Amino acid sequence: MIKRRETKVIKIGSQKIGGNNPILVQSMCNTDTHDAAATVKQINALQKAGCEIIRVAVLNMAAAKKLGQIKKQIQIPLVADIHFDYQLALEAIQQGVDKIRINPGNIGSEDKIKMVVEAAKKKKVPIRIGVNSGSVEKRILAKYKNKATALALTESALYHVKLLEKFDFKDIVISIKASDVNRTIAAYQLLSKKVRYPLHLGVTEAGTKWIGTIKSAIGIGSLLNQGIGDTIRVSLTDDPIEEVRVGWEILKDLRLRKRGRVLISCPTCGRTQINLIPLAQAVEKATEHITKPITIAVMGCIVNGPGEAREADIGVAGGKGVGVIFKKGKTLRTVKEKDLLKELLAEINKL
Amino acid sequence: MIKRRETKVIKIGSQKIGGNNPILVQSMCNTDTHDAAATVKQINALQKAGCEIIRVAVLNMAAAKKLGQIKKQIQIPLVADIHFDYQLALEAIQQGVDKIRINPGNIGSEDKIKMVVEAAKKKKVPIRIGVNSGSVEKRILAKYKNKATALALTESALYHVKLLEKFDFKDIVISIKASDVNRTIAAYQLLSKKVRYPLHLGVTEAGTKWIGTIKSAIGIGSLLNQGIGDTIRVSLTDDPIEEVRVGWEILKDLRLRKRGRVLISCPTCGRTQINLIPLAQAVEKATEHITKPITIAVMGCIVNGPGEAREADIGVAGGKGVGVIFKKGKTLRTVKEKDLLKELLAEINKL
Repeated sequence: MIKRRETKVIKIGSQKIGGNNPILVQSMCNTDTHDAAATVKQINALQKAGCEIIRVAVLNMAAAKKLGQIKKQIQIPLVADIHFDYQLALEAIQQGVDKIRINPGNIGSEDKIKMVVEAAKKKKVPIRIGVNSGSVEKRILAKYKNKATALALTESALYHVKLLEKFDFKDIVISIKASDVNRTIAAYQLLSKKVRYPLHLGVTEAGTKWIGTIKSAIGIGSLLNQGIGDTIRVSLTDDPIEEVRVGWEILKDLRLRKRGRVLISCPTCGRTQINLIPLAQAVEKATEHITKPITIAVMGCIVNGPGEAREADIGVAGGKGVGVIFKKGKTLRTVKEKDLLKELLAEINKL
Repeated sequence: MIKRRETKVIKIGSQKIGGNNPILVQSMCNTDTHDAAATVKQINALQKAGCEIIRVAVLNMAAAKKLGQIKKQIQIPLVADIHFDYQLALEAIQQGVDKIRINPGNIGSEDKIKMVVEAAKKKKVPIRIGVNSGSVEKRILAKYKNKATALALTESALYHVKLLEKFDFKDIVISIKASDVNRTIAAYQLLSKKVRYPLHLGVTEAGTKWIGTIKSAIGIGSLLNQGIGDTIRVSLTDDPIEEVRVGWEILKDLRLRKRGRVLISCPTCGRTQINLIPLAQAVEKATEHITKPITIAVMGCIVNGPGEAREADIGVAGGKGVGVIFKKGKTLRTVKEKDLLKELLAEINKL
């Protein structure tokens, strides 16, 4: 249903983003990159949760020198996040990372930019320009009353793009994140009209699990619904596993990707004669591990439930002390309330 | 920043929606409406959490007859949710409810519609037409390959609108909810071009707390960001208090309303040298009760934190074993990590 904006295809190790390639879910480690074992462990756990590209912070040369070792022990593309220091970028590329995130305007002289670009070209390593509200150049901010507006963010991104294009480097991905949702949406909308490079979506400093999930769902979800975005990263002040879970949920809700269960369940109301909240929660929990796509409905009333949720692969609808199990809108059988969960899960396992 | 679509102003008891009026947060009781005491108790708890309009299911005449009693004991407008039975609508209006939700096409003969409309007119009670994927007329569904597409939902809404307008009734609010997010967004976009009546936003059967929050944030958030929507209801298979909390969070994130704290916090990364996740969670929890608008930042690093979060009223940024408290981007003082929370809360209380 969503018509995606046309973008250039960029290869990131074994993965591709842009064009008609799937919108990939990324995250970032919060381990000390210098601790390769802890970082590898976290990356492998994240991959299991559905993470498809992983980024690590590279703060110093000691950390950069661990990248090769980390890379060898993981299966998903590795991205090095670098600020200011071109030598860290060169080392990361040398170590075999699959992408670097660096803003060329912050590296220093043109010579240094050129060195990074040449190394990246040689190893076919793309560069993500990562602009955010805090990184906009003072000179650009000054034009916008010292506010990192959507226009300022866009201007900053285009400035960095030009620095790379100057050396004929076009293996570019761009992000342009604000912590304000409206501004994030507006910035990506503006940028998407200016460039054909794939866009990495995110709302920066979104907040804790609950707050950041809502902010990210609005920001990332709105843009994806408008066809903008080729890879996403939900930023949460929480375990990065949570970021991956939320990322997938957003993509599933927008029918952009399939993975595991899509759950439909009605809000309970005065009509509900079954203890629906714990049942829906139990179904959610019991089906968390499933990776095969399936739509499950947990509905409050027998009268409307199966009809309203006829698009679900399987579902339950509650009556008084009993419930029905239904499949694609057709009732299979009536069972006692206490057996509903068990019987539903048995049907799900059959699928 | 958001330019709201122009809509007619509709009065719902002591509240107004549409035009430039604030976008109101609603919820629905999941108590048995017939149990007036339990219903009143839930409504008052919901009001305390920020609920501004409350709806109750009216299943039968016994429940309808309790509406006046409920109404007397609450401070926010009361909406009666009625399906099919015009006599329940007449009784609800008689009992003094502030709005009824009923789809006129489901009432039966034109005489019955007319009776409801005349009663509503007399008492100045608006009617919300509530179309959802499960309620689209078979005749309309047939035109769309039996699918409740965005066009089918819109056609159904317009059909009900015409039935009311026929009797010169224009005190109308409309909702057009699908459980699919893309379809919900598309339906509201279509409808918003066809009518000037205020729109009540929601994604139906969105799911359990976590799943439904994400789905609702995408659907409701996208539409609000586009200027569509005059009142919102987040549907969750959970305590309705959660619906109100999520509703407010969406409005706050989009700068459409102010209430309590807006929290900005960075995702931790290899750069973070402070135990940021529990700190951010503690700040979130400790500031939950605040209703006065305030933006709080919890940032991982002293170097970038205060600058990146310069729009925050107050914030903390972590260093190694210490942190700084900052106000509008300016550092107030450095404190030990263990005292950060206490000192931050003290500063918040001063504001």
